Amino acid sequence: MNRLSHIIDLDMYSVEEWNMIISTAMEIKKDPSKYSERCKGKIMATLFYEPSTRTQMSFQSAMIRLGGSIIGFDNPSNSSVSKGETIGDTAKIVSTYSDILVMRNPSEGSVKAAALHSDCPVINAGDGGHFHPTQTLTDLLTLTIEKGGLNGLKIGLCGDLKYGRTVHSLLKALSRYKDNEFILISTNELGLPGYIKDVLNARGCTYKEVNTIDEVISELDVLYMTRIQKERFASEEEYNRQKDVYILDTRKMRSAKKDMIVMHPLPRVDEISVEVDKDPRAKYFEQAGNGVYVRMALILCVLEGKLSTPELIKGKALNDISCKNPKCITHKEPHLPHYFRVAGDIAECEFCDERTLLD
Amino acid sequence: MNRLSHIIDLDMYSVEEWNMIISTAMEIKKDPSKYSERCKGKIMATLFYEPSTRTQMSFQSAMIRLGGSIIGFDNPSNSSVSKGETIGDTAKIVSTYSDILVMRNPSEGSVKAAALHSDCPVINAGDGGHFHPTQTLTDLLTLTIEKGGLNGLKIGLCGDLKYGRTVHSLLKALSRYKDNEFILISTNELGLPGYIKDVLNARGCTYKEVNTIDEVISELDVLYMTRIQKERFASEEEYNRQKDVYILDTRKMRSAKKDMIVMHPLPRVDEISVEVDKDPRAKYFEQAGNGVYVRMALILCVLEGKLSTPELIKGKALNDISCKNPKCITHKEPHLPHYFRVAGDIAECEFCDERTLLD
Amino acid sequence: MNRLSHIIDLDMYSVEEWNMIISTAMEIKKDPSKYSERCKGKIMATLFYEPSTRTQMSFQSAMIRLGGSIIGFDNPSNSSVSKGETIGDTAKIVSTYSDILVMRNPSEGSVKAAALHSDCPVINAGDGGHFHPTQTLTDLLTLTIEKGGLNGLKIGLCGDLKYGRTVHSLLKALSRYKDNEFILISTNELGLPGYIKDVLNARGCTYKEVNTIDEVISELDVLYMTRIQKERFASEEEYNRQKDVYILDTRKMRSAKKDMIVMHPLPRVDEISVEVDKDPRAKYFEQAGNGVYVRMALILCVLEGKLSTPELIKGKALNDISCKNPKCITHKEPHLPHYFRVAGDIAECEFCDERTLLD
Repeated sequence: MNRLSHIIDLDMYSVEEWNMIISTAMEIKKDPSKYSERCKGKIMATLFYEPSTRTQMSFQSAMIRLGGSIIGFDNPSNSSVSKGETIGDTAKIVSTYSDILVMRNPSEGSVKAAALHSDCPVINAGDGGHFHPTQTLTDLLTLTIEKGGLNGLKIGLCGDLKYGRTVHSLLKALSRYKDNEFILISTNELGLPGYIKDVLNARGCTYKEVNTIDEVISELDVLYMTRIQKERFASEEEYNRQKDVYILDTRKMRSAKKDMIVMHPLPRVDEISVEVDKDPRAKYFEQAGNGVYVRMALILCVLEGKLSTPELIKGKALNDISCKNPKCITHKEPHLPHYFRVAGDIAECEFCDERTLLD
Repeated sequence: MNRLSHIIDLDMYSVEEWNMIISTAMEIKKDPSKYSERCKGKIMATLFYEPSTRTQMSFQSAMIRLGGSIIGFDNPSNSSVSKGETIGDTAKIVSTYSDILVMRNPSEGSVKAAALHSDCPVINAGDGGHFHPTQTLTDLLTLTIEKGGLNGLKIGLCGDLKYGRTVHSLLKALSRYKDNEFILISTNELGLPGYIKDVLNARGCTYKEVNTIDEVISELDVLYMTRIQKERFASEEEYNRQKDVYILDTRKMRSAKKDMIVMHPLPRVDEISVEVDKDPRAKYFEQAGNGVYVRMALILCVLEGKLSTPELIKGKALNDISCKNPKCITHKEPHLPHYFRVAGDIAECEFCDERTLLD
Repeated sequence: MNRLSHIIDLDMYSVEEWNMIISTAMEIKKDPSKYSERCKGKIMATLFYEPSTRTQMSFQSAMIRLGGSIIGFDNPSNSSVSKGETIGDTAKIVSTYSDILVMRNPSEGSVKAAALHSDCPVINAGDGGHFHPTQTLTDLLTLTIEKGGLNGLKIGLCGDLKYGRTVHSLLKALSRYKDNEFILISTNELGLPGYIKDVLNARGCTYKEVNTIDEVISELDVLYMTRIQKERFASEEEYNRQKDVYILDTRKMRSAKKDMIVMHPLPRVDEISVEVDKDPRAKYFEQAGNGVYVRMALILCVLEGKLSTPELIKGKALNDISCKNPKCITHKEPHLPHYFRVAGDIAECEFCDERTLLD
């Protein structure tokens, strides 16, 4: 089977390839009309097993602005899935109708399972709490445009650092560049998990943990805000008590540097007050717009063969072991081989990356 | 911020501008293929927070027949709205993906709230019981085609005149032309509200109120039928008793003039019996087809800068007062400023036009 | 009214016309890019009153690959249907927005009811348990490609032969070709109904009935598998007991001829084990891909006037009789005339083909 460039996890590609996607996006942003026929005759199928209007419309806009067309679904009860069809069968069949698949699914590792069976490239638009590579590329593009590059930045990341997939992915990506310093702003209960800190340590990154925006905002080049879901707090009172610490408003912005920028993956609820929108340092709407350019660049690089074609499975099938992550696709679809990468006595699930200790 | 031509309420534009849209629609209808590339490369996003297949498909067909493309959603549970995002944020973000937004939402004033934040023009496809400007333009186009113009017509309007948004909007529009006479056919309980009669009186329009189709049908140039929802009647018996009065059938049509036309915004349930469909005077299906041409004309006029760019907000923010209309968008979204137009001791909500007496 | 080529039931067209559609599909498959502008400017509206992502996306892909565009809905609660609009009104109105309609609806005869009112051609994408003509054409195309033609084949059909619409339609179609022999593999409870056997007998077809795949697989040129819904079995134990008989796996495949092919309309759940997928004789994914080419061919033949324009109604309205089929569209929509074809004392419903004995 011909290998394809599937975009499941950014770490499958080199930093040089990320930089190529980002500079392609910047070229497109300068003059989008030059690209308006590049995907003429091509079809993108968006398979969204859980709703995400903004991400879906961003991909659709990207494909259309390249001259391509779109088909898809956004409601799993309308799909053959409700008749018990596996994600691999769906991917294989829909790949005969289209030239590129974009998939979002709440089960972790689901998009890689689809890619294993697809006859065309697959882009991960979010697999549960696991990866969302095009969000990370959007963030890297925005930083490149607004700060001139991805090295030597002092970046505050605020909010739910424990469960925030977007924050984990951005930290792991930025740790591949030089001289970045990270300020992690959260409650003690929602701090960055150990396994991400391990990655930062292994790459020699500098970081510190604080509890309030106020104490660090004046040092930052970038403030990356994320939403804290109310349910993450122990109680309604706890949530209300912490609210003022984690809400960004014009008062806090007065201490920030003239050239600091504020980013947020959106949607925001109240963690950035609407008065901040008028501040020229607020870049979260431009960030959303950049998402279309980065997706245009990615679609082009994938369809025009500009990226390498990494192996999806590096390990082997160990069908006696089960992945410990209850949200892993292997639990929903018993026919998938239990692929693991083994190092010593640790087995990492090839689908969702969960680690299991081998007896 | 550049001003844009948002189509929220037809009264934001002059009668001359309405006439330009209508004559553009007639040109398009004569030879639609001439227009098939006019919006090449442009994207329309349809954001339907409540279902309306026909209106949505009519807009989509219009954009495609202009050579444009479409993205959007028709199911709010699939959208970021369910995550608490404001309509302004959604509009701002989606306006970075598209060139024109078309929005339908059950909250009154919601589409104006979206337009305040959008970076591209917004067309109102229906905001609760408030406005549906493209339906009115469709009606005006149909009258122009079938009756040669919009002056000197004797028009019967039948059905739910109390709650019928389509009827209110058509009356207000036709009252801007000359020598039209209106016959209002309804039960006493579902008669035209006082505030619409005020508008007709202020513009010197002639109208009379009757209870049956039979007593007036022979005088009419136009009979505009609307659906009466069963729930509007006090009881099932009342509904059944009135049914015969308000149902149009071939018997009643025998008294009508040879050149009278029958219109209906559709869907119709049983208020026009199917036997009337064969009568050449039945124009409600042509009316639906005209909707595509008028939307093509409107999209062109908006995107090609043929319309003026009126201010959305003429009044000021009075945050101590709340709009009295429970369906106003300001109740769903507390961050919206409470904009009111003040005249004497009356404050009119800028979003939903509800009047409040100032203390 | 101009007659149109509606594709409701394959039997409305001759075998020569089926062959033309199939050979057009084969031409398209050889070089799809040659056809990429043939439907430029044309719009297909897909009206799916019940979900079927694969069929809908297959039609959408076909139209786009012909250079056409798509509008539509896939969720009836989002449509005017929920406001009580008849299928005829919906079809008439949507036919003013588009050039071809594709409809799926759970009521039998519903698509013919739509076609009676539509101003453009209508293609049946499945009306309840009645017809699904494009699935049958897909099957005929696949047989032609893989076996060189549609005559002289020994075809095993396995699974739910009692309720399986796809099987009934394929048998009726193949019975119009020469020297085909059918092996019907099912439990006694799920055997082929008498009225289909009547058709086979009337056309002089050879068939036999067996209970297991194993006893016949070595004779077959084609094995056509279908899914048996668990609910069809009398009990869970009965289902489990029969499972091994009706599941196709690599063990059973070892007895099959080198050039036998395996087909399945999909989705498959467990009736074909995934290990069979690697077998070069497994053709069900190619079959799904062929569906796009056959739909492209059908759309072209319909829009370019290559097919005849058969009368939809051959019989007459007998409004004193009601169709006995509770799933017939005439029960959902009382305004539809009760059209029947009468032969002797049997009246066949024109919509759903159910037979009623006239007193």
